[in-house]
Amino acid sequence: MRVLFHIPLSPFSRKVRVVLAEKGLDFDLQVEKVWERREEFLALNPAGQVPVLVDENGEVLADSAAIVEYLDEVYPNRPLLGFDAAQRAETRRLVAWFDLKFHAEVTQNLVWEKVTKRFMGLGTPSSGAIRAGLHNIAYHLDYIGFLTERRKWLAGDAFSLADIAAATQLSCVDYVGDVRWDGHEAAKDWYARVKSRPSFRPLLADSVSGVSPPRHYADLDF
Amino acid sequence: MRVLFHIPLSPFSRKVRVVLAEKGLDFDLQVEKVWERREEFLALNPAGQVPVLVDENGEVLADSAAIVEYLDEVYPNRPLLGFDAAQRAETRRLVAWFDLKFHAEVTQNLVWEKVTKRFMGLGTPSSGAIRAGLHNIAYHLDYIGFLTERRKWLAGDAFSLADIAAATQLSCVDYVGDVRWDGHEAAKDWYARVKSRPSFRPLLADSVSGVSPPRHYADLDF
Repeated sequence: MRVLFHIPLSPFSRKVRVVLAEKGLDFDLQVEKVWERREEFLALNPAGQVPVLVDENGEVLADSAAIVEYLDEVYPNRPLLGFDAAQRAETRRLVAWFDLKFHAEVTQNLVWEKVTKRFMGLGTPSSGAIRAGLHNIAYHLDYIGFLTERRKWLAGDAFSLADIAAATQLSCVDYVGDVRWDGHEAAKDWYARVKSRPSFRPLLADSVSGVSPPRHYADLDF
Repeated sequence: MRVLFHIPLSPFSRKVRVVLAEKGLDFDLQVEKVWERREEFLALNPAGQVPVLVDENGEVLADSAAIVEYLDEVYPNRPLLGFDAAQRAETRRLVAWFDLKFHAEVTQNLVWEKVTKRFMGLGTPSSGAIRAGLHNIAYHLDYIGFLTERRKWLAGDAFSLADIAAATQLSCVDYVGDVRWDGHEAAKDWYARVKSRPSFRPLLADSVSGVSPPRHYADLDF
């Protein structure tokens, strides 16, 4: 059986989980406490990060971008990047926007500060980081709104990896209760559409010990 | 004519320059001072970052990973990712290693602190960051050595985007004189091989106002 080493509130692990589900691929989930630096895990991925996927054929895949590109190529039943080179470039541009920019400006400042840091025993959240994260998120919700007022989904007419990358980052921030949806109706409508996909449901059932999500977290009509 | 908006010491711009050269594609280089947030440039890439490529057909491409994936697909004369899905996954894993991990642990701490920060008027370099960068680089040179003792090039038998990503990050750090090559013979031999490729030569002729590279920077036999 395919195995995905993950952390529940790692947005990059979530991205791979949704891609696997969209493609109808079965997998076992295994939590990897990366901060313990387990030797067998470092042998799979010397970078020591999740997600790592061990595919049915034994292929070991590390780095979320490398994993989803591999899955999109090997299991092409449901293409998630686009149907021509220009569309794929637009999808990948937006994936990078959320994987890098949103992650650095929002997710790191909120989820990492409030949850991961505590698990790793690195002390209390920095109030400066939390202020920055809460400030930055409005700009990203506006950008999602800007895109979805012009397109059906973030990268174009079809649901794509761009939607998955954006929604999985947001889902982690939503879990810690820090997405202020008010005043961002277009982004909220788009997120409701992503949330209602069967591939997204397992994420809404995640629970992290000691951190309860707000009631609207799993609510499809929030 | 194809135009690449870049910054000379941006490793991601350098990665695209080498890819274009490896594929024999002509292009004009245009320096974009991203910190000035020029409106026409933000219209091309709302993320406000280089590199941005405007291809011959007018296609606007942003984000270095999206650009190189596009180029590898549209100009397949010289494939830089690999010849099967597993090989491409290994190449992309290593590209992520250098684009994300090396960049955060080394390039940001040294090149950004010493050069970019000054251009942006953000003050003097942090000595803590510089110490961290100098400490971290040894580990990455060891990893390059580990790989090249087992493979001809970083990702396997063929020169690939992994070599380009690693060498362009290193080239920026080498420009500011912070790569201590002593004791890292395998990494040094590999870098000498990359440096001697015609695609890499233009990078060795770069000059940044107010920052002179050490003499060995452009030396093929350093």
